[in-house]
Amino acid sequence: MKRIVTHFTLTIVLVGLSFNISAQSASWSEVAPGVWKTVAGNPDKLDLFNTAGILPAVDALSKMGSEKFPFSENDIVTNVTNGKTYLRFPLVKDEQIFGFGLNFKTVQQRGKILQLHVDHYGGTDNGRTHAPVPFYVSDKGYGVFINSSRYLTVYAGTAVRKDSPDAPEPLDRNTDKKWSSQPYSDAVEILVPASGVEIYIFAGPTALDAVRRYNLYSGGGCLPPRWGLGFTQRVPTLYTSKQVEEEAKLFSEKGFPLDFIGLEPGWQSKSYPCTFEWDKSRYPDPPAFVRTMKNMGIRLNLWTNPYVSPVSSMYSKMLPYTGSHTVWGGVVPDLTIPQAQNIILEQIDMDQVSIGISGYKIDECDGYDRWLWPDVAMFPSGNCAEQLRQTYGLLLQKMTTELYHKKNIRTYGLVRASNGGGASFPYVIYNDYYSHEDFITALINSGFSGVLWTPEVRGSKTSEEWLRRIQTVIFSPMAMINAWSSGTKPWSFPDVEKEVKEYALLRMQLIPYIYSEFAKYHFEGTPPFRGMNLEAGFDASAKMVLKNDNLNENPYAEAVLKEIKDQYMTGEYLLVAPVFTGQTSRKVVLPKGKWYDFYTGKFAGEGEVISVTPGLGKIPVYVKDGGIIPMMKPVLQAPASGEKSDLEIRYYGNKPGEYKLYDDDGETFDYEKGIYSWRVIRVAPDKKGKYTGTISKAEKGKPDNVGVVTWKFMSLE
Amino acid sequence: MKRIVTHFTLTIVLVGLSFNISAQSASWSEVAPGVWKTVAGNPDKLDLFNTAGILPAVDALSKMGSEKFPFSENDIVTNVTNGKTYLRFPLVKDEQIFGFGLNFKTVQQRGKILQLHVDHYGGTDNGRTHAPVPFYVSDKGYGVFINSSRYLTVYAGTAVRKDSPDAPEPLDRNTDKKWSSQPYSDAVEILVPASGVEIYIFAGPTALDAVRRYNLYSGGGCLPPRWGLGFTQRVPTLYTSKQVEEEAKLFSEKGFPLDFIGLEPGWQSKSYPCTFEWDKSRYPDPPAFVRTMKNMGIRLNLWTNPYVSPVSSMYSKMLPYTGSHTVWGGVVPDLTIPQAQNIILEQIDMDQVSIGISGYKIDECDGYDRWLWPDVAMFPSGNCAEQLRQTYGLLLQKMTTELYHKKNIRTYGLVRASNGGGASFPYVIYNDYYSHEDFITALINSGFSGVLWTPEVRGSKTSEEWLRRIQTVIFSPMAMINAWSSGTKPWSFPDVEKEVKEYALLRMQLIPYIYSEFAKYHFEGTPPFRGMNLEAGFDASAKMVLKNDNLNENPYAEAVLKEIKDQYMTGEYLLVAPVFTGQTSRKVVLPKGKWYDFYTGKFAGEGEVISVTPGLGKIPVYVKDGGIIPMMKPVLQAPASGEKSDLEIRYYGNKPGEYKLYDDDGETFDYEKGIYSWRVIRVAPDKKGKYTGTISKAEKGKPDNVGVVTWKFMSLE
Repeated sequence: MKRIVTHFTLTIVLVGLSFNISAQSASWSEVAPGVWKTVAGNPDKLDLFNTAGILPAVDALSKMGSEKFPFSENDIVTNVTNGKTYLRFPLVKDEQIFGFGLNFKTVQQRGKILQLHVDHYGGTDNGRTHAPVPFYVSDKGYGVFINSSRYLTVYAGTAVRKDSPDAPEPLDRNTDKKWSSQPYSDAVEILVPASGVEIYIFAGPTALDAVRRYNLYSGGGCLPPRWGLGFTQRVPTLYTSKQVEEEAKLFSEKGFPLDFIGLEPGWQSKSYPCTFEWDKSRYPDPPAFVRTMKNMGIRLNLWTNPYVSPVSSMYSKMLPYTGSHTVWGGVVPDLTIPQAQNIILEQIDMDQVSIGISGYKIDECDGYDRWLWPDVAMFPSGNCAEQLRQTYGLLLQKMTTELYHKKNIRTYGLVRASNGGGASFPYVIYNDYYSHEDFITALINSGFSGVLWTPEVRGSKTSEEWLRRIQTVIFSPMAMINAWSSGTKPWSFPDVEKEVKEYALLRMQLIPYIYSEFAKYHFEGTPPFRGMNLEAGFDASAKMVLKNDNLNENPYAEAVLKEIKDQYMTGEYLLVAPVFTGQTSRKVVLPKGKWYDFYTGKFAGEGEVISVTPGLGKIPVYVKDGGIIPMMKPVLQAPASGEKSDLEIRYYGNKPGEYKLYDDDGETFDYEKGIYSWRVIRVAPDKKGKYTGTISKAEKGKPDNVGVVTWKFMSLE
Repeated sequence: MKRIVTHFTLTIVLVGLSFNISAQSASWSEVAPGVWKTVAGNPDKLDLFNTAGILPAVDALSKMGSEKFPFSENDIVTNVTNGKTYLRFPLVKDEQIFGFGLNFKTVQQRGKILQLHVDHYGGTDNGRTHAPVPFYVSDKGYGVFINSSRYLTVYAGTAVRKDSPDAPEPLDRNTDKKWSSQPYSDAVEILVPASGVEIYIFAGPTALDAVRRYNLYSGGGCLPPRWGLGFTQRVPTLYTSKQVEEEAKLFSEKGFPLDFIGLEPGWQSKSYPCTFEWDKSRYPDPPAFVRTMKNMGIRLNLWTNPYVSPVSSMYSKMLPYTGSHTVWGGVVPDLTIPQAQNIILEQIDMDQVSIGISGYKIDECDGYDRWLWPDVAMFPSGNCAEQLRQTYGLLLQKMTTELYHKKNIRTYGLVRASNGGGASFPYVIYNDYYSHEDFITALINSGFSGVLWTPEVRGSKTSEEWLRRIQTVIFSPMAMINAWSSGTKPWSFPDVEKEVKEYALLRMQLIPYIYSEFAKYHFEGTPPFRGMNLEAGFDASAKMVLKNDNLNENPYAEAVLKEIKDQYMTGEYLLVAPVFTGQTSRKVVLPKGKWYDFYTGKFAGEGEVISVTPGLGKIPVYVKDGGIIPMMKPVLQAPASGEKSDLEIRYYGNKPGEYKLYDDDGETFDYEKGIYSWRVIRVAPDKKGKYTGTISKAEKGKPDNVGVVTWKFMSLE
């Protein structure tokens, strides 16, 4: 696939620094089919797209074809005044918008005020989150991206202008019951605290298409190694190599799948701040340990945070490239300086990657004001603390991704911060917030913003909670237990051990499907996990509901949005409807068309709200009419490169169906050279009404890992 | 009293715009005894002190005498880089700092990160509050004020610099139990998002002295009219003049004190946005109504917010001076433009003030992002939205204060936003948050920041809560029931009606004391309501306590400060220890020296923590040894100008005591011309050990409102 490097050769168009209030209308250039850019004022040198080093997937964008610019002239207003840039984008009545990064409590964003600020998530959707991506998508079928490394203040349809033609009539609160504290607003308005910014518009025609264009422009979504989709366990922080080996054996003996193990801070000789070096008392012979684990088929992932301990061997080399402030006494590398990146990369390559470490979990790069460098910190590059904060996660992902890319080895890791342009990095975001319900809303929101999110399982108060969490994490980008502090194992709750194993194995069975969906993320920009609002036929209507009718307690009679934020799509066909602790039944909103129970193939409903009582042992999952789900055997580890897997191809409903199954070596970047195959699976009735399935052959010389194929017509039998 | 007008003739010293990281050391000039100023970079034209139009009380400051600059050279670092100003002030070990405005949950501020931002209070002490005053005071005896109209980001002893000599040794979290997520920090660091700022330092020697200097430099604290210290009731929003009259009669008949009544939005013909005009259906004859009420001895206070309705008679005049965005469809006057102020002042003068309205309650000038003008709004003055937000409350207070001042009539009102420099404005802050406990912490914090706060009473779930709230509001700057929505009356809970009346009358009895304490606020800068941390002999030691020892729930092992934030001083002698709903007993921390029960005069303890079980009918109040409390009779209205009041002077303990009793006409600004008197009350034992009290005579030709004096030796009998 050919790509173009546009962002290192940006021609900065000075729209001009204006000190009056008059609005400037932007001039747009189409930088790829259905993607337009404009430049207001004089943007910062450091922005999100150039930090991420995006390589737009131009061929894929071209395949999507051209669309007309979704706005008319003068619809978008930019204004650079006194060192700040003011932006305005129109909204029409009933338009809904989604995105602005990894929010945890709400899906629809119209009516929100956010300050996009990379941060740990503190329990409120206020813009401070691990990936506050300045991208939103409209149900009218377009997306808007603000390419800024600043803290952006976003009024997503809340502010009302004096000159707005849609401004509502003022009402008299004394006497008019219809008075509202939140009158109708017709615009998204954004304050960029810099004297200029680049803006991108992504065409539809659907909201999903706009997301796809955004992801493709960012380089396409990441394609993890196949083993990355297997099960992973993160072990307690002070484990020794011997304990890790024993734990891996136990998984195997007990028949629980396991593809990679994460080592937490204790693998390092010192942590918080970090040495980036093995602790020789707990890990006396790292190369031998990595080999032993590899022989068991288990890869290793290493936790780190980016703050360098004074006792690290790289400390003195790093010191000149660090910021004015420390984090836990560690220095903060100015990662916008290549030398700072290289000092870390040399250390981790020499010490870890070269002996076979498969990837990293990069912690604390999101920060939390209580311990991160402050906004008053200074960095030797001259980039300010705010810009470093907004881009640190991107920088860490990019540099480590490139290290593995150079070795032609795929990696798949965890990161706690990302931002716009990061879709191609093979990293999954996680955090400490641990609300199961909100974790699912985050999973939905990740799909609007070109990031991946795992609702990781740590501990649980009850076996019910444990199983409910396991049931959802297996329908996520990374099927993980993080036992760094809790020490839990999949079998920690014996009364649900059987069900946990069943779901862990279901995850393994689904790998051909999930892997194909990730390939679509990469090649077509379609997020593998995404909200219902991107699904055709889903009724997203949501209601504003008064918070509380006691004026003493709710003096402005504020209303909040009631919306669907607890069900999502996994890939093309699966609708997942999690059940949370304490629930025995739930409602599921089925989009238009027929839907079938994943487990039984039975008809579940069509374009309606159903109520289900699945029992503790089941998470409700539904398949779209005509859905085809290729599944492999419940193996304990993902197939290695070239290893053939037998397939059970399940077919649901009775509408003729088609599915594109992806295959490659699963481990290298050879797919970038075209060494991959798409096979078309089709199920349709013959003239006599008998359904049969076909699967196309792999292209000659292309990867072919499909063994024996069996067919299962779930709804016909 | 002579004052100097410094702030309209500021010489702006350009320290120079620097684009490197090197720190600039500031050069300080002493602008008043014990008050120093420096200028970093090129400050904004609009700042807090010039917005408030402060007139420093130079004579009073001179009386306090000179002190040495509390820091040594180079201790304070300022740095202007890329349009932002970075400030650093030192902290020493165990130093505690207080202030940063009206916080609700914490008193000590070291360890906090705040973005000072005028806003409604949202339940978290994050800097967003009604009066986020950029002033802090140290227990080492100095204060620091940042004279900026911007959103300041404050790291109050949280960030750690690489080059700090006090930087703690990094610890290894893997193995060291002493590892902390919050290492020791030796500085307050502040980010000013502007290319310069003025900074002031206020000397001690005590923290209270630093507060006094700050208040005096701001012009001295406000002196309310005497009637403002009486009881006030705010009536339901749609009350008519007839209903208001009836309510006033009911107070009188039932023997409840009442000095002024507040009319809520319904007095206006339309509200939210406002017309600033009487509703003629509810108030057919405003002048007659005001006269009738005045004849009953009742003044009237009018609610408004500053957003102008299109149907207001001043709308078209105001339109050219309004911002780009509306609030509830009302236009937003750019109050930094004199014409905009004058249009409002003319309207309210003509329509309301000239007929005898005593003051205003200015609502919604703090804002709440959901409905206020956004930060992208533009204003015709060229001042930006952020600056208007930070100063709007100050501007509204200043313009209305001046209107009354010109008429030589004192006013006393309510406002929902203030900021630095506002101490002289006769306005009390209130809000909708309504946590009784946190209201008391706010009362404590108001004393550090030159603002007044009332823990107003609205509704209550139980009679217990009702009485507990009444018991504290009477020990506050404004003894108020706000029944705008609840319709409550003092007697709404019949089972505690007797106790409510007793406390309402106690408030009246205390007026000579509270009025004198306000005079000390004005003439000496001493806040009438203030935290224990400003009291000599108070042990402010507080402990950091682990939030939660489960690492899954508290992954950074964060600690929080346990401190005393539920007791406070009312004036020189009274220690008030509120009891909250659900409590039957509480601990009271008595500072060094002896303390006596206010009600009985009995010895309560000395320099110790006592536990008390006061019963529902009592709020624990203690008097310092030698305390003198001048009290008047339990009248229903504050004495009018020239009206004599008999005094019962209570004396507590057995240490010789002295008290300065203030007197003036209670209604005009003639005190500014020296027309006031201080009388000295002394109690001491004679040679035989018999205690007697004396009160000095009023100076000739000066106000003398003291009638018959009786003495009550509370602890001797």
